[in-house]
Amino acid sequence: MAMPPVLALTTGEPAGIGPELAVMLAAGAPAAGTPDRRVVAVGDPGLLAERAAMTGHAVEPVECRPDEPLPPPMAGQLPVWPVPLRAPSRPGVLDPRNADYVLETLDVAVRACRDSRAAGMVTAPLHKGVILEAGHAGFTGHTEYLRDACGVDEVVMLLATGQALHAREASWAGGPHLRVALATTHLPLREVSAAITPERLERILTILAADLKRWFGVASPRIAVCGLNPHAGEGGHLGREELEVITPTLERLRNEGLTLDGPLPADTLFTPRHLAGVDAVLAMYHDQGLPVLKYAGFGRAANITLGLPLVRTSVDHGTALDLAGSGRADLGSLQVAVALAAEMAQRA
Amino acid sequence: MAMPPVLALTTGEPAGIGPELAVMLAAGAPAAGTPDRRVVAVGDPGLLAERAAMTGHAVEPVECRPDEPLPPPMAGQLPVWPVPLRAPSRPGVLDPRNADYVLETLDVAVRACRDSRAAGMVTAPLHKGVILEAGHAGFTGHTEYLRDACGVDEVVMLLATGQALHAREASWAGGPHLRVALATTHLPLREVSAAITPERLERILTILAADLKRWFGVASPRIAVCGLNPHAGEGGHLGREELEVITPTLERLRNEGLTLDGPLPADTLFTPRHLAGVDAVLAMYHDQGLPVLKYAGFGRAANITLGLPLVRTSVDHGTALDLAGSGRADLGSLQVAVALAAEMAQRA
Repeated sequence: MAMPPVLALTTGEPAGIGPELAVMLAAGAPAAGTPDRRVVAVGDPGLLAERAAMTGHAVEPVECRPDEPLPPPMAGQLPVWPVPLRAPSRPGVLDPRNADYVLETLDVAVRACRDSRAAGMVTAPLHKGVILEAGHAGFTGHTEYLRDACGVDEVVMLLATGQALHAREASWAGGPHLRVALATTHLPLREVSAAITPERLERILTILAADLKRWFGVASPRIAVCGLNPHAGEGGHLGREELEVITPTLERLRNEGLTLDGPLPADTLFTPRHLAGVDAVLAMYHDQGLPVLKYAGFGRAANITLGLPLVRTSVDHGTALDLAGSGRADLGSLQVAVALAAEMAQRA
Repeated sequence: MAMPPVLALTTGEPAGIGPELAVMLAAGAPAAGTPDRRVVAVGDPGLLAERAAMTGHAVEPVECRPDEPLPPPMAGQLPVWPVPLRAPSRPGVLDPRNADYVLETLDVAVRACRDSRAAGMVTAPLHKGVILEAGHAGFTGHTEYLRDACGVDEVVMLLATGQALHAREASWAGGPHLRVALATTHLPLREVSAAITPERLERILTILAADLKRWFGVASPRIAVCGLNPHAGEGGHLGREELEVITPTLERLRNEGLTLDGPLPADTLFTPRHLAGVDAVLAMYHDQGLPVLKYAGFGRAANITLGLPLVRTSVDHGTALDLAGSGRADLGSLQVAVALAAEMAQRA
């Protein structure tokens, strides 16, 4: 192809802030880190035009065919691979009739990645509840949908702050930069312990190590692993999962060549002494790893799905229905998501 | 008393870094925030002299009687309320014979606080395991020991970063300053859900609000409360404790006059938008709140026990047996603990 491959940006729930974030991205300067990657929005061109007008951005959506190269870049234009809304959408008002629209944008982006028409995909937020309400029983989110669409068994949710790609180079004191992967994701807290099995830890750590090499160019990844219990169980006084599950599994994986620290107490792991030289942290569950990641990222963090045969990054926030249409949404996470996808795609 | 009240610093496990931290504190400039509070170490004067020599600090321990005013301050002197070691102690080598020594230092400090001979107490780390080994079955740490010694039913563990006393004044962007209290502390993760009861939440939040007023001078405390589950349960999709326990309890306490935000998803709560104007965060469990607190505090955080009839602060780290005797221990947390105790004592 003469044109460099594009990044497909699915614009997500039409009643949320996704469409206006796509417009804001196009209105600004080229996103950091993407001089050689053009972003094409996937969504309804009329919706994008409407939200551009509503939020005061002089951005014109330009319909393009997914099977043809994009037209030459023009200031103020946003290339769009069109997917038609199923029903009109107003900011902040969910409509189950548009659930299939949202899912079709994902299908379009996945196909483009699989066919090498796109170098990767970046997703704006969708709304799980309305997709469930529309009858897609068992829908649990982007990550699982993409896992199934790509026919893989396991994926890993990794969150990264903006500077995380250069974690080895930057000094910790120079600013926060973190990558945190999760061993379990959207599970009620009371179900977490039972979900931490040797098999799951092995699958997750194997994918994490492989994809740190593949997408992030880390030759020999070092991963710091949190314990499950406070103080990593304190020798069994505060829980036995470390002794019975986590430590033996890490030992086995070390023998297979992985470089793993831990299990370490989560509250001391996220300090310079333990983070130095670490390429990623594996937290055992959502609220053990993500509060510190998002605190450190300060609106500049993004979500990456590892284990897929394609590059997929995402914003780290939700649909923000209350902000939709106001133009006050924060573009920071999307900029990081696009920059990360562009960097990862260079290594594809 | 002619002399200003002192802060009693218990020097903790003799094989750990506690004794040398006391020496380092005396060797440095007066700790920030404590111009009017003198620190008296509680421990074995010979041990302190030995560790001063071992770590190269020209500090002379001076034995004082707990029932008499301290002698006038002299550079290079460390006033000590003596408690004799039960057996010689070497850095890094635990000895159960000294368990009673460690507990006696606490008793001496508590008595001094109760009798108004001390304005508060600051504790260096002890080692739970060796105290259990010595036969004190059921010993679970400083906090519970002090609770029982003071005859109260419930205490609250609050961690604060160095600047937290002025959270309302400082802008968030000006640097991290956080206070995080815990609804449960040293419990295996699998037991946390069952421990989050309406009664416990009410006790903890009542103490937290009262002590933010009493010790921190916050006229009308605003507390942000985390959910238990990821995304605070996401309307019941990811757990029901928010719907069944937390939300109704917060509602009831609001009707009684408390100012409470939440339950909020822990991973978005620790961001400027949600922290603005918040005096403390209540996390449901240890690893939900402390990783972000310690990341933010960056070696400058301390532990405060609320609900006691006295001022008690502590370092936020352990005995660091591997560092003991080296002089390489970080004094930061102790400095913050002393400064916080001094500030709190002003309001006693």
